[in-house]
Amino acid sequence: MTNETKAEIVRDRFLLSHNNVIQSLKDFDLKVIEQNEDWVREEGGGGITCAFSNGKFLEKGGINFSDVEGSKLPPTALKERPELTGSAFRAMGVSVVFHPENPNVPTAHANIRFFSAKDCKGNYIWWFGGGFDLTPYYPVLEDVIFWHKNAKKLCDDFNENLYGVFKKQCDDYFYLPHRKETRGVGGIFFDDLCLVDFETTLRFCEEVMTVFTTSFFTLFEKRKQTPTSEEQRNFQSYRRSRYVEFNLVYDRGTHFGLQSGGRTESILMSMPPVANWLYNWIPEAGSREEELYKNFLKPVDWLGLQK
Amino acid sequence: MTNETKAEIVRDRFLLSHNNVIQSLKDFDLKVIEQNEDWVREEGGGGITCAFSNGKFLEKGGINFSDVEGSKLPPTALKERPELTGSAFRAMGVSVVFHPENPNVPTAHANIRFFSAKDCKGNYIWWFGGGFDLTPYYPVLEDVIFWHKNAKKLCDDFNENLYGVFKKQCDDYFYLPHRKETRGVGGIFFDDLCLVDFETTLRFCEEVMTVFTTSFFTLFEKRKQTPTSEEQRNFQSYRRSRYVEFNLVYDRGTHFGLQSGGRTESILMSMPPVANWLYNWIPEAGSREEELYKNFLKPVDWLGLQK
Repeated sequence: MTNETKAEIVRDRFLLSHNNVIQSLKDFDLKVIEQNEDWVREEGGGGITCAFSNGKFLEKGGINFSDVEGSKLPPTALKERPELTGSAFRAMGVSVVFHPENPNVPTAHANIRFFSAKDCKGNYIWWFGGGFDLTPYYPVLEDVIFWHKNAKKLCDDFNENLYGVFKKQCDDYFYLPHRKETRGVGGIFFDDLCLVDFETTLRFCEEVMTVFTTSFFTLFEKRKQTPTSEEQRNFQSYRRSRYVEFNLVYDRGTHFGLQSGGRTESILMSMPPVANWLYNWIPEAGSREEELYKNFLKPVDWLGLQK
Repeated sequence: MTNETKAEIVRDRFLLSHNNVIQSLKDFDLKVIEQNEDWVREEGGGGITCAFSNGKFLEKGGINFSDVEGSKLPPTALKERPELTGSAFRAMGVSVVFHPENPNVPTAHANIRFFSAKDCKGNYIWWFGGGFDLTPYYPVLEDVIFWHKNAKKLCDDFNENLYGVFKKQCDDYFYLPHRKETRGVGGIFFDDLCLVDFETTLRFCEEVMTVFTTSFFTLFEKRKQTPTSEEQRNFQSYRRSRYVEFNLVYDRGTHFGLQSGGRTESILMSMPPVANWLYNWIPEAGSREEELYKNFLKPVDWLGLQK
């Protein structure tokens, strides 16, 4: 199978995944306002953006599909693959970010992606990447365990060694060194992936999107009516600034998008609706806010905590 | 004079500049709440942070002094000076960011900095950098001209060629490629500077801080009572997200601070109190918001527009 045929297969199947997530969102939040846009990129390729806001439960977010080509891989994709400097490439992905309004529901993110390129010897190469992670404001331990249980089951169905590796990679990736905090409670993260063969790896990516969507909306359903307060909303806005810091300072996907001339509004649909910065804020001793800092913003073996 | 003696002189004089700006802030806004902190850095050095918020006129901001040493210059300082890879260094600076509450008053920023290092041949080298720039939400042309006039006068007193060069460098530096916008209406920016000699360059930096402070508070005084509305405040929050994008994605000072293990809360005191992201927002035709986009967010020869 040529790289081109592979890419076309990935395109069709990623588009299906993209559609499935949109459908789940619509079923869950009937009031959400969608702004759908097809966009074309000058250098080649384009994408489909579904941005949404002002739902009954979802405040803001986006479900993006993109398929871009270029004559030179941007620096952020070359870090681990210097042999591809100057390579023509095709990059495809589905990215999802949900910012719920109720601070008792976490922010959630998922991504699957496919790269193909020609290396310096003229060989066609390809790889998949992806994952999902959860960023709670007022975390509930049983929810975090549920999230990781689903991640582990998804991985185990393919290979029993995957979860441990991908869970650690997620903790490592979604980390803010300047804050000494993880972004949230993690999930799984993988890159440069070929699992058995092309079809198996693609199927794994599809499952990542399905398990993400099902797990997230299950948690959302459970917590969406939890009473909240202005204080909790303020804390959510404050913590959302960490989300901004991670995405703008460290996230390779964001940098890849901006460097490769992607569509800015589609890339930055991951931004929260609002973020606050307060100088040197620290949580009150014994508060639920402190609990987040003390017990959740670091790598934890969540499944080891099951009763 | 040894590099060490130079650094001590810079330290004393930068501390005076730092103090002067704090005094001007206090004189201007009696209600501002200051949080002053001395901090020490593990690898060497430290700083003095004056963060402030909830003033009558100033919503948030900071006036930082820092003096840090390290055994290896961080990557962001090496871009133009690969010969200093692995060099021990000392970096000193005063950084100021003012986020006024009234959207009719621009956000303003200034910085002066001094680096000394030992190059690969064992030579001690030093340089100064700095500048100031203005980020209006509802710009007034005469204010922008006033700002640049003062910048030009400051430069001309040292050398008549400086303003043109430093003005262009400011437009180039404070630019968001992914938005195709300048951060604001600019000012001056310089790096790797030695102007005649050490003392003259240091004096130039001191003048930069003085002219910045005087010019900004003059404009502030003039516009602080301009009536505003909730809509204007919303637009200010929306535009403040551009400020966040610039500082976190592009600003070398921010990256240098985070990479060199600086104090996060001091570095990120530049963040606005609040920022909003709206998907694909565009200003209404004929509005004042559109005027900002059309006429101000690009390099303009402001002094050529004087009547």
